[in-house]
Amino acid sequence: MLRKSPLGPEHFPNLLPVPGVEIGAAAAGLRYRGRPDLMLARLATGTAVAGVFTQSKMPAAPVEWCRQSLAASGGTARALVVNAGNANAFTGARGDKAAIATATATAKIVGCAPNEVMLASTGVIGEPLDVSAFPKYLKRINEGLSGAMWNEVATAITTTDTFPKGCSRIATIEGKTVVISGIAKGSGMIAPDMATMLGFIFTNAQISVGCLNEILKSATNASFNSTTVDGDTSTNDTVLAFATGKNANTTLIEDPNDIRLADFKIKFLEVAISLAQQIVRDGEGATKFVTVDVLGAESAQAAKTIGLSIANSPLVKTAIAGEDPNWGRIIMAVGKSGERADRDGLKLWIGDQLVAEKGVVSRKYSEEQAAVHMKGSEIGVRVDVGVGDGRATIWTCDLTHGYIDINADYRS
Amino acid sequence: MLRKSPLGPEHFPNLLPVPGVEIGAAAAGLRYRGRPDLMLARLATGTAVAGVFTQSKMPAAPVEWCRQSLAASGGTARALVVNAGNANAFTGARGDKAAIATATATAKIVGCAPNEVMLASTGVIGEPLDVSAFPKYLKRINEGLSGAMWNEVATAITTTDTFPKGCSRIATIEGKTVVISGIAKGSGMIAPDMATMLGFIFTNAQISVGCLNEILKSATNASFNSTTVDGDTSTNDTVLAFATGKNANTTLIEDPNDIRLADFKIKFLEVAISLAQQIVRDGEGATKFVTVDVLGAESAQAAKTIGLSIANSPLVKTAIAGEDPNWGRIIMAVGKSGERADRDGLKLWIGDQLVAEKGVVSRKYSEEQAAVHMKGSEIGVRVDVGVGDGRATIWTCDLTHGYIDINADYRS
Repeated sequence: MLRKSPLGPEHFPNLLPVPGVEIGAAAAGLRYRGRPDLMLARLATGTAVAGVFTQSKMPAAPVEWCRQSLAASGGTARALVVNAGNANAFTGARGDKAAIATATATAKIVGCAPNEVMLASTGVIGEPLDVSAFPKYLKRINEGLSGAMWNEVATAITTTDTFPKGCSRIATIEGKTVVISGIAKGSGMIAPDMATMLGFIFTNAQISVGCLNEILKSATNASFNSTTVDGDTSTNDTVLAFATGKNANTTLIEDPNDIRLADFKIKFLEVAISLAQQIVRDGEGATKFVTVDVLGAESAQAAKTIGLSIANSPLVKTAIAGEDPNWGRIIMAVGKSGERADRDGLKLWIGDQLVAEKGVVSRKYSEEQAAVHMKGSEIGVRVDVGVGDGRATIWTCDLTHGYIDINADYRS
Repeated sequence: MLRKSPLGPEHFPNLLPVPGVEIGAAAAGLRYRGRPDLMLARLATGTAVAGVFTQSKMPAAPVEWCRQSLAASGGTARALVVNAGNANAFTGARGDKAAIATATATAKIVGCAPNEVMLASTGVIGEPLDVSAFPKYLKRINEGLSGAMWNEVATAITTTDTFPKGCSRIATIEGKTVVISGIAKGSGMIAPDMATMLGFIFTNAQISVGCLNEILKSATNASFNSTTVDGDTSTNDTVLAFATGKNANTTLIEDPNDIRLADFKIKFLEVAISLAQQIVRDGEGATKFVTVDVLGAESAQAAKTIGLSIANSPLVKTAIAGEDPNWGRIIMAVGKSGERADRDGLKLWIGDQLVAEKGVVSRKYSEEQAAVHMKGSEIGVRVDVGVGDGRATIWTCDLTHGYIDINADYRS
């Protein structure tokens, strides 16, 4: 792996095993040496699955496979196979065959129907993915599965990531506890609508497919789809949620608005936000973690558009990299978003300090004080555009020489 | 000025005087030392003017001034004043007053109504523009005006530009020749819808305001609005066209579709494209000039959206900087554009070489040969998305360490 991002955690968190989920990984030598790059998760009978996928018009073969299989199976899954190093994207009919072959082999090993096998790939686009050795490796992984190998599987799905990403929470449903554990990968090509980003969230809650779908969609919108590193969207983005129902000791819950799910939904969202933020903290070349809060917009969607306009602006991102409180560029980004804003009612804060109001720089604004905030590694930008009640929060990182180094040199 | 872009011309072109246009510049010490930063153009009585402005919801005071004045005057102008170093943007009521004061003082000096004075500013956002010394400098410039000081005025409007930009053409209308001379500035914050970009095109053709408006709009769409450096849009973007009618020796032409304007429209577009391309060649940190041709799209607008998706992708731009024919990233950018494309009918060329077709890499593709093309400074990317007849061409540059250097350090 590359040198760890300065915004990364000290060590991989202690992820909790999820009843009904067994995991393992192997070094299949797809692209990397001396590290796992193929993972398998085996799921208990009756596991519900929900998925959110890239909006790209050029989706990769495993994305198309998952979409078709979810439709065919009605939302049950028995296995998840992920490889890193090759995206199996823009690989034509051969790519489709590779996906089918992997699912078929896995189904045989695990003992299920092929469409109960979910697939994801990440890595180089346009190179054929050779899966001929997959059955051998998957068989070997299957023999050594355990509930605890989270660090191994989180590492197996990484590409330009500088650290593996994971998060666990315990939620209470009807007085009983269930576990939610998730892993994710991604650092470049990160933008809303599921940039090169993989996320897998496992729980033993006993909830229906429809319910899981709603919870996943809502959480994705407020987490993965509220982050951006470089505005690019990949061919492979996938977030899958699996609910095994194992040892949940509750009755099946089918309504996403069921009051009994209140705590579960909060904890599920916490896992999704933590994973999304870890991806931003691993943004290629990132040295600053930036939280953009937008309020006073016409609607929540307008606030999100404004927030993304700020968070995706190369001029804002380079100013943050340079520790320059260049607030004029933030105003520029609000203006170019196309959303309504009141020039003379707008308020802008950097950190806790009011920078601009009433159409001009604030009288109390101290550039020295703002510069101190910019020297930190956690940057806050807050804009009230003064026309309504819409709010949104977007997370991003700065744009540095490190991004250029990684992307001008590395064939990702 | 910063060290000249490697993509810049050897020297400033020999621009032709335009009958009815007198120009001059002065060093008003607004921000820069030892270089002109304030320009004045005095225009003959009866000069028609047309303008295209930023789509930003936070337009600068001079942009609002021009919009109001064009409406009030019905499209006549007698003067143009441009300053560099301060954008007079997000400066509240004080900024509006500065614009009015400048126009009023200029009107007095030139002898016209204030709303016949066009204004533009470029530079730092959010700092008050002190115009108290403008009357003194404008008077001095007015006394020394000439038809030939193009290099001086082209230099006076620059900020992070590394070279002044200009272009002249001679067009024939009814067998008589007219001159078209234009200048422009811009290098960062360049994107469609008029990023921090100023362009001023002067001609002595005798055409109506309505006619000039149509010709300017159409040319802007195929030139300035078909370029992108970093996807950012400024608060100040302005393109103005002036037609003096002086010594044109023709009758007034009022219909933009008049066949007599055929050659004029071509030459006008050539000037606009040349200026737009010069801006891209001066893209902050640019080392490669990139032409993105999109064909086979559902419509011209869809082709433009796809072209801009490719041209704005940081991953495509950094790959080009790294001289890496990483065509998978181009496919990614086509996919994320949201426009319809046929994965298996898509064809992609780098330079003259067919890279991908039928949903996979082309059999004849030689990465070595593509790498040779990438080493040049003029890069060609061509995509046929295989679903229709829509075409567009977009010009952009690569994303390098130079861009980060300029924008993380310079308060622009």
